[in-house]
Amino acid sequence: VKEFTVNPVGIIRSPFVKKDDAPIQGAFVPDTVGQVELFSEFAEGLKDIEGFSHLILLYRFDRAGEVELVRPTFLDDVPHGIFATRHPCRPNGIGLTVVRLLGREENVLTVSGIDVLDKTPLIDIKPYVPRFDAHPEAASGWFAGKEPRPKPTGRE
Amino acid sequence: VKEFTVNPVGIIRSPFVKKDDAPIQGAFVPDTVGQVELFSEFAEGLKDIEGFSHLILLYRFDRAGEVELVRPTFLDDVPHGIFATRHPCRPNGIGLTVVRLLGREENVLTVSGIDVLDKTPLIDIKPYVPRFDAHPEAASGWFAGKEPRPKPTGRE
Repeated sequence: VKEFTVNPVGIIRSPFVKKDDAPIQGAFVPDTVGQVELFSEFAEGLKDIEGFSHLILLYRFDRAGEVELVRPTFLDDVPHGIFATRHPCRPNGIGLTVVRLLGREENVLTVSGIDVLDKTPLIDIKPYVPRFDAHPEAASGWFAGKEPRPKPTGRE
Repeated sequence: VKEFTVNPVGIIRSPFVKKDDAPIQGAFVPDTVGQVELFSEFAEGLKDIEGFSHLILLYRFDRAGEVELVRPTFLDDVPHGIFATRHPCRPNGIGLTVVRLLGREENVLTVSGIDVLDKTPLIDIKPYVPRFDAHPEAASGWFAGKEPRPKPTGRE
């Protein structure tokens, strides 16, 4: 199984300049607006995206610290396996957020519910399709009952 | 915005050996069972994953063809922008599927609803959290009303 190279296709603009400013999850800040700017050479690939109300963004956690396979998270002081969390310090450092699509102007999408740091490298955009992606009945594991709270310090 | 290297963390086993065998989406084959095998050095990162009923898998489309930014898809003969589709031939070649977690034995997860080719490189596992990820009301764009059909030939 071989390694491969990822070349970002754009950049995400958000109001969150510092790590401490960024929310734990976009779902906790549904009204936060940001821009997803595709590099112009990829703009053609956005054709028909306006039909979708929600998009899945894949991006690079480019300011994350060292990977720890078992660790406390922003939402819980109990350590969990990294693959049972959405924490940034993970193998391959790829993040995923579902955002709402508000509008498009050429190669720039305006979205809400964004939770990434400003200038985060964009890796991919996928249309959110409820038939594939919506499982409201899914069990939330240790997330069940956890409420948003201020980020504990020193937790990256 | 810099490129970076991805090193797979495991391998996905499925009944689909040839491209023509693989379904268009896992949601169309909810009963298909496969295994997600994490390389043993990452096994510790699975702690507490059993509490989740659904997982998001990120994987490498390692047998996809050339990227075309606007193209017909498996479900539609009308061309769409690649970022408005889930087609494998996309910039950075990263796929996403939501699967149901059936069980775990050490570093191997058994899942259902798998749609990838056998021996697909695994990039990441994320817990599916309905509060973040379930948007049953989302608009499906051009997917609306499209039904599963045999894959058109020559469409990768």
